[in-house]
Amino acid sequence: MKKYQELTKEELTELRDELNKEFEDTKKKGLSLDMSRGKPSPDQLDLSMGLLEVLNKDSDMHTEDGMDVRNYGGLEGIPEARKLMADIMGVKPENVIVGGNASLNIMYDTVSRGMMFGFLGNKPWKDYDNIKFLCPAPGYDRHFAITELFGIEMITVPMKEDGPDMDVVEKYVNNDETVKGIWCVPKYSNPQGVVYSDEVVKRFAALKPVAPDFRIFWDNAYAIHDLYPDKNVELLNIFEECKKTGNEDLVFELCSTSKVTFAGAGISAVAASERNIAEMLKYLTIQTIGFDKTNQLRHVKYFKDIDGVHEHMKKHADILRPKFEVVLKIFDEELEGLGIGTWTKPLGGYFISFEAMEGCAKEIVKKCADAGVKLTGAGATFPYKKDEKDTNIRIAPSYPSAEEIATTAKLFALCVKLVSVEKLLGEI
Amino acid sequence: MKKYQELTKEELTELRDELNKEFEDTKKKGLSLDMSRGKPSPDQLDLSMGLLEVLNKDSDMHTEDGMDVRNYGGLEGIPEARKLMADIMGVKPENVIVGGNASLNIMYDTVSRGMMFGFLGNKPWKDYDNIKFLCPAPGYDRHFAITELFGIEMITVPMKEDGPDMDVVEKYVNNDETVKGIWCVPKYSNPQGVVYSDEVVKRFAALKPVAPDFRIFWDNAYAIHDLYPDKNVELLNIFEECKKTGNEDLVFELCSTSKVTFAGAGISAVAASERNIAEMLKYLTIQTIGFDKTNQLRHVKYFKDIDGVHEHMKKHADILRPKFEVVLKIFDEELEGLGIGTWTKPLGGYFISFEAMEGCAKEIVKKCADAGVKLTGAGATFPYKKDEKDTNIRIAPSYPSAEEIATTAKLFALCVKLVSVEKLLGEI
Repeated sequence: MKKYQELTKEELTELRDELNKEFEDTKKKGLSLDMSRGKPSPDQLDLSMGLLEVLNKDSDMHTEDGMDVRNYGGLEGIPEARKLMADIMGVKPENVIVGGNASLNIMYDTVSRGMMFGFLGNKPWKDYDNIKFLCPAPGYDRHFAITELFGIEMITVPMKEDGPDMDVVEKYVNNDETVKGIWCVPKYSNPQGVVYSDEVVKRFAALKPVAPDFRIFWDNAYAIHDLYPDKNVELLNIFEECKKTGNEDLVFELCSTSKVTFAGAGISAVAASERNIAEMLKYLTIQTIGFDKTNQLRHVKYFKDIDGVHEHMKKHADILRPKFEVVLKIFDEELEGLGIGTWTKPLGGYFISFEAMEGCAKEIVKKCADAGVKLTGAGATFPYKKDEKDTNIRIAPSYPSAEEIATTAKLFALCVKLVSVEKLLGEI
Repeated sequence: MKKYQELTKEELTELRDELNKEFEDTKKKGLSLDMSRGKPSPDQLDLSMGLLEVLNKDSDMHTEDGMDVRNYGGLEGIPEARKLMADIMGVKPENVIVGGNASLNIMYDTVSRGMMFGFLGNKPWKDYDNIKFLCPAPGYDRHFAITELFGIEMITVPMKEDGPDMDVVEKYVNNDETVKGIWCVPKYSNPQGVVYSDEVVKRFAALKPVAPDFRIFWDNAYAIHDLYPDKNVELLNIFEECKKTGNEDLVFELCSTSKVTFAGAGISAVAASERNIAEMLKYLTIQTIGFDKTNQLRHVKYFKDIDGVHEHMKKHADILRPKFEVVLKIFDEELEGLGIGTWTKPLGGYFISFEAMEGCAKEIVKKCADAGVKLTGAGATFPYKKDEKDTNIRIAPSYPSAEEIATTAKLFALCVKLVSVEKLLGEI
């Protein structure tokens, strides 16, 4: 197959008419599918129904240190849950606070505290005329939504194949006192599925921030979310690297069981240095009476330990992997060699990132919607929702069934072709 | 029995020696009891163990409108839970957001939003040189801790037998643009057990705040926590009153099941006007992926409806009532007529408020601690922990067993007598 760019105007016109006919036929099917968010599918949720039965009327509701999980107290989380979440992140339990059902809320609260109170004795961020966060992009829209809400200026940092462009990161962090944070999804990044290389992690740990209150938001959302568990994809432990560089206060690491047990009823956790944890607890004791320790105990009893979690994650992989493979196979068949798009082939996480021809992403998403398939809005993966080149589309294959996925991927490929032809013909 | 104030110096000295001996004997018992917080007792928590069994592997995990509670979404709470919490507060479900396990966290978040973003288009509170909250006192220490953390000036408003001194409230709210809020526990107030009278509620609803962003934090923590369910203690519905006065944006009402099911694993809710709810959701959608809907479904399935909740609360009353009665009986026997203290006789809630002679509260709490009984710190019930007259002590009879309660109440009465004598002798 020729690249579209090499086709004559006549060939393109003919192709457009064919594709248009095919598109109109597909529209008539009246599809109604949602690939907009990284939601687990019902059968993934079914994997954890046993979670509902580990506690019953006769259960001992006490922690290993004798606390009644049903009552108040235990702001930092129950010891067993701190251990489990610490093991997921490769840190010590004393460096972990177990939160509620959303790590996003921990991130929001942490930024909010930075704004209102400042970190470790530094000036509250609200008292600056302007502060900045670095935003490797394409990235996670909900990260960007938090910084945008608080009026923090977002600086786009290009994503490379092994993580953010560290030259750019270093330039900002090591020179600009108003750069206060960076959003990272270091393993199976949202949306590319990039795993930060050892070098990138080491360069993060070796940053020399001008701002003493610069923080890395290390959102390890997909820490254990491998599609190919046997491939042993490893992310370097940033806390161990930070220990070597004396930069332990630099990082807030987040994780959760939202995509391990129930997306809406899991447990979340933050890992940080001793000083950061102590400061968080100081504020948390005023903010809340403590998080849901019963749900923490439920999770611990269900998994027993980190091995139990890994075993469980293999079942998720068995459900997710075929969906990713279907999409990638159809993209290969339909789009490979046409010069109208590239896409990532992640080994874990929840997304495939698609790069269309310049100026085509919005139109592709619109066309898919016209045919009944909802995708993440084009641009959503960039700060301020502005994808300057209009190329990036996030594909979330997790929720639909394997059959629906095939339909969707075919429609998507069709829309990519159609829009690309229209673009080359100068029609859009 | 004579009032202590009428005793001669010799009589007081003799009495002090007797009391001292008794105190030393008690100390030798080596008590270790905690009456510092309004914690449910283990047998109260046992009442809700059935909550752990209403959901199992075979449960339908969908809401009445078809949402899978296990997945993301449903920021405002599941319809059934909104209805249940609305019924507790006497409002409509559409005016309710169901939160996580702590209404305190909703209050913290709401104050935090006032500070950072402002309410309904008004200037963020952080942009004022100084703002104020009214704090009816004695009151709830955790309310005061929130306002203190945010640097909000706290104005103490005297509590009367039917609620806050409304002359003072009106004077501030209707004249001072920097007064932005007031903390209220309108039913069975913490710590007095006062139920706001109809007139007080009507005067709240009829406030004419100079500040358009003045808000009443109506923490209805004990809405259904009657010790004598048959007495039908009724609090006027503030939203209905506010409807009459056109003041519907004025109130955030809070409630939770922390003292209904599990203190650490219940569900919370906020009720507010349509405009306030819409604004809250606008921020919540950035703050979190939604609260734990599985726990919401668990609560709804367990109680079925508001009648189920009321039935359940009677069981709590049966456990709590004897504890309150023991304390009150011992106070009557030991302290009545001595002129050294007064105390409230609440019909619900979690506390008894004790008023000692001026300058005695701290010393009484200290003496109790010396003998192994931990009480809420004296002063904790006032803004900045400053009880100018040093008279108020909050007594929390819920957690210890009925037997322990008697021991504690006797020790407390003894300490009150001893400290009062010492005070009258000019020794402290």
